[in-house]
Amino acid sequence: MEETTVDIQLEHQKYIQPLGDWVRTHSCQELTAQNVGEEVVLMGWAQFRRDHGGLIFIDLRDRNGLTQVVFSPDENAEAHSTAHILRTEYVLAIKGRVRPRPEGMANSNLVTGEIEVVVTDWKLLNTSRTTPFAIEDRLEATENLRLKYRYLDLRRPRLAQNMIIRHRAAQSVRRFLDENGFLEIETPFLTKSTPEGARDFLVPSRVNQGQFYALPQSPQLFKQLLMVAGMDRYFQLARCFRDEDLRADRQPEFTQIDCEMSFVDQEQVMAVGEGLARKMFKEVIDKELPQPFPRMTWDEAMDKYGVDKPDTRFEMLLTDVSDVVKDSEFRLFATAELIKALPVKGGAGMSRKEIDNLTEFVKIYGAKGLAWIKIKENEWQSPIAKFLSEKERAGLTERLGLEVGDIVFFQAGPADMVNAALGNLRLRIGENMGLIDHKQINALWVTDFPLLEWDAEEKRFNALHHPFTAPHPEDVELLKTDPGKVRSNAYDMVINGYEVGGGSIRIHNSEVQKDMFKALNIGEEEAREKFGFLLDALEFGAPPHGGIAFGLDRLIMILTGAKSIRDVIAFPKTQRATCLMTEAPSTVANTQLRELGIKLREKTTK
Amino acid sequence: MEETTVDIQLEHQKYIQPLGDWVRTHSCQELTAQNVGEEVVLMGWAQFRRDHGGLIFIDLRDRNGLTQVVFSPDENAEAHSTAHILRTEYVLAIKGRVRPRPEGMANSNLVTGEIEVVVTDWKLLNTSRTTPFAIEDRLEATENLRLKYRYLDLRRPRLAQNMIIRHRAAQSVRRFLDENGFLEIETPFLTKSTPEGARDFLVPSRVNQGQFYALPQSPQLFKQLLMVAGMDRYFQLARCFRDEDLRADRQPEFTQIDCEMSFVDQEQVMAVGEGLARKMFKEVIDKELPQPFPRMTWDEAMDKYGVDKPDTRFEMLLTDVSDVVKDSEFRLFATAELIKALPVKGGAGMSRKEIDNLTEFVKIYGAKGLAWIKIKENEWQSPIAKFLSEKERAGLTERLGLEVGDIVFFQAGPADMVNAALGNLRLRIGENMGLIDHKQINALWVTDFPLLEWDAEEKRFNALHHPFTAPHPEDVELLKTDPGKVRSNAYDMVINGYEVGGGSIRIHNSEVQKDMFKALNIGEEEAREKFGFLLDALEFGAPPHGGIAFGLDRLIMILTGAKSIRDVIAFPKTQRATCLMTEAPSTVANTQLRELGIKLREKTTK
Repeated sequence: MEETTVDIQLEHQKYIQPLGDWVRTHSCQELTAQNVGEEVVLMGWAQFRRDHGGLIFIDLRDRNGLTQVVFSPDENAEAHSTAHILRTEYVLAIKGRVRPRPEGMANSNLVTGEIEVVVTDWKLLNTSRTTPFAIEDRLEATENLRLKYRYLDLRRPRLAQNMIIRHRAAQSVRRFLDENGFLEIETPFLTKSTPEGARDFLVPSRVNQGQFYALPQSPQLFKQLLMVAGMDRYFQLARCFRDEDLRADRQPEFTQIDCEMSFVDQEQVMAVGEGLARKMFKEVIDKELPQPFPRMTWDEAMDKYGVDKPDTRFEMLLTDVSDVVKDSEFRLFATAELIKALPVKGGAGMSRKEIDNLTEFVKIYGAKGLAWIKIKENEWQSPIAKFLSEKERAGLTERLGLEVGDIVFFQAGPADMVNAALGNLRLRIGENMGLIDHKQINALWVTDFPLLEWDAEEKRFNALHHPFTAPHPEDVELLKTDPGKVRSNAYDMVINGYEVGGGSIRIHNSEVQKDMFKALNIGEEEAREKFGFLLDALEFGAPPHGGIAFGLDRLIMILTGAKSIRDVIAFPKTQRATCLMTEAPSTVANTQLRELGIKLREKTTK
Repeated sequence: MEETTVDIQLEHQKYIQPLGDWVRTHSCQELTAQNVGEEVVLMGWAQFRRDHGGLIFIDLRDRNGLTQVVFSPDENAEAHSTAHILRTEYVLAIKGRVRPRPEGMANSNLVTGEIEVVVTDWKLLNTSRTTPFAIEDRLEATENLRLKYRYLDLRRPRLAQNMIIRHRAAQSVRRFLDENGFLEIETPFLTKSTPEGARDFLVPSRVNQGQFYALPQSPQLFKQLLMVAGMDRYFQLARCFRDEDLRADRQPEFTQIDCEMSFVDQEQVMAVGEGLARKMFKEVIDKELPQPFPRMTWDEAMDKYGVDKPDTRFEMLLTDVSDVVKDSEFRLFATAELIKALPVKGGAGMSRKEIDNLTEFVKIYGAKGLAWIKIKENEWQSPIAKFLSEKERAGLTERLGLEVGDIVFFQAGPADMVNAALGNLRLRIGENMGLIDHKQINALWVTDFPLLEWDAEEKRFNALHHPFTAPHPEDVELLKTDPGKVRSNAYDMVINGYEVGGGSIRIHNSEVQKDMFKALNIGEEEAREKFGFLLDALEFGAPPHGGIAFGLDRLIMILTGAKSIRDVIAFPKTQRATCLMTEAPSTVANTQLRELGIKLREKTTK
């Protein structure tokens, strides 16, 4: 079977002609009733052929759309006759005349649906083997097959459209930032390894054997140095690299819209960030985002939504009920640091199986189980109801506004776990119950993040954003006395429950930077070795500065409605970080390694 | 001394204030007589301070320029008094009133030279240690010191300007290509190693131990795959990587304006390439490039200029004189494959020492020596004149249009050497004699390159551009019979003697691509292993396509007049491929290497 189509394809190659002096006049998404009577030249792929009433019809496809093309023996007998070789995905150029489709044959789903082009002459530009999957949006091929033949996958209208939207979004960003005085400045890819947060990708140096470059996790240090360099406003659509085990929505390389500004405070950076997003959503998908964006403090987000990137497209908030039930007979409540409830309006119809699934789900976030109460007409149906006194029931009813038909979920324990478990449960139930309007775009700022977070395992503070984030001006002195209390000058932009951007005002004073390293338990020597050049730079007249970085891939997912990050990247990697098309990574010649002064470690077999 | 300035700087830190609600109203390059009387807020660096007549003058500098700022005790006594702490490169914000400079004090060299701003209030935003070199264009610091303190070097107006021009050029390119239907599509950095031409930078894979990614030498294969994918018109400002020993004007990472188009021939690609360059030169430095560009075949370029990137800003052409002198008594001429002359008008005054220098110079290109003749009033002064008959002298005089006062240089031997030696000699003499108008921008196309070049050492053909370049349509059949004769569908854009761009129509037929690999002596298995995915792709309906890539760094050098590529890149590497600021590359922790499954090779001491 395979053989046969290859044979036919080879046989048909004799019909291939060079382009010669043929020049395209229109794309396949352009011709309408306005163009009837015009002589046109179109080029593209044969999407679909059907023979009907002695005529041959081809849907000719290019990046932009489809045009119906007709080969008629009355128009050009030879052209019609050779058109019999045409098969799916053959490449052709046609000259023809635009005419209206016959009465009743118009297709209102297509821009070009009112017309067809009757062929006066044509050239076969290339043949094609039978493709391993059909070039159409409703597609059942496995993702691995699609990735191996990515050049065919990208021909599908939806993926082609994603690439077009990505381009338009990037252009919109660049225009906006250019108009606002930002310079796009390219920072190096071969940089210094400063393991901090994620794992670096390393690049062995041949000239300096035994030494390594690292691919940048972000241009953070370079953009701050550009501010010290007086560049004032910098941006870059920067590729970033993190060698982490990949989750479903991660890629080893991803793109960041990276911005930095001098002589500004948090308000000015946020105004630019909002402006950028507003312009992008307006220009690319004609959605108006609010001006200004609503804001929420980190405390409020954690309190009501349990996560620092609240999805505000639906209500159903978390509520602290510690004071109401902490004296109950339910043992778990008595000892808990925090007890929160998630009341679900009209959720009392959930089956036992659904509740079991949700219980499994919250375990991902460290929960041991999931307490629940169904509010029925005559009773509270619940494994824990018996532990609750009348007063506690009344307290819950009032606090949570409970009504017959609701279900309430509870989580008790350490605050981190309670918030994560219920916050994510909220999202899951919101999705399950169809509470989310997927056409809505809800954007907001989350502000006043803590500067540091306590790492209980390592018994030390980590920087919540990164170690260059400035403390809130009112909290600078706390850095030395009570670091855990310090708020930061950091802000995240959240859209539909995704953190699409985040930034901060940076430390521009070398003494404060040293205090910060001290609070993070980074010794003077270590700080010097890793970030000496930054500490130096801060001593030579660093201006106040701050910035923001957006995840471009995530923004494009929201703009296109794509479900997978792999659908918005031209040549993505699998979760094993491989490219199925080129088969990267691959083994390399020993001479290449020898030149680099490295060798493979023997595999230890255990 | 060092101690003292650090002490003062630390002492002065107590004056530092936060920005608060101060917002800049203007840049330091904006205020003119039009603004007199306005209240403004400026921020920047103290470029220079002088105290005069009880007043303190500061040249306040930002990315864009300078504004003179005056602290006067009459305006605000306290502000004036604290201003005494101000030192070079301190960062400050001032509120003030624009006023004309006093009679006779205007500085016509500055945009802001007619005005000054008298300070009503100010804030110290940061102090600075004494910089290791002065922030000014006439600079005598070593390049290594400048690279170590790159964030100070970039404050110099010339370098800041280079970054601004680079940004504007990149924006101009993107707008032009966007308007012409190109999509900017990002291709991967973690790709497959296909050693071909230059050496790859490798990235060890942690997830797939023993395997390596390569950083792209160019997105060549991906852009062709994007054409197979129907993307129609692609571009990218793409970082490219080559692990080569660095010459003065090379960097291990550099930026390419990378374009590819479907359904076009050479003329259409060249039209886009010209349009892009014309728009860039017009928009960025207001220079008009010709429409269309002049063209020269590769044969003509080699014949007249000896190089494939002729500098046409001056005449003084190479001339083949083989037929005139090949029978002379000069032994070297008798056996030479090619004899060429370079007549230099009015060059007879060159000293023996100058000629000796030029003789040394041509040896770089493989020449053994340099024959010359000075045309004097009464004689031909020359070591070789005695070997030339009257007829040969008459022949040379006529062929070369020799006149008294000229000098002629000769080179005889293999064509490659003769052309390289005389072609580069021409450039050297043109520069020495001031024949080059450095304000001129001369752009042209060189076309009809040979497809293959013979590698005498390896006794095989190499691709002159790359193995995907299409043969000239008229020469396709020669590929199997006489590959050395095949012209290619390739073209270079040359400006002022630099190859700023190059491209070709690509092979879009898998059979022709296989013939090409055969001509290059790349076996079927090797071709399959390295480029199997491309060969596959060509069988699934690849459209005719071609493209062009420009060296952005080189273009910016021409636009800015920079002499070094390091002056147009924000954070360049040295010729040892190191970054003196961050000290990359560096050693890394053994645990990092262990995770990657590699180790350092023991150094073999010989």
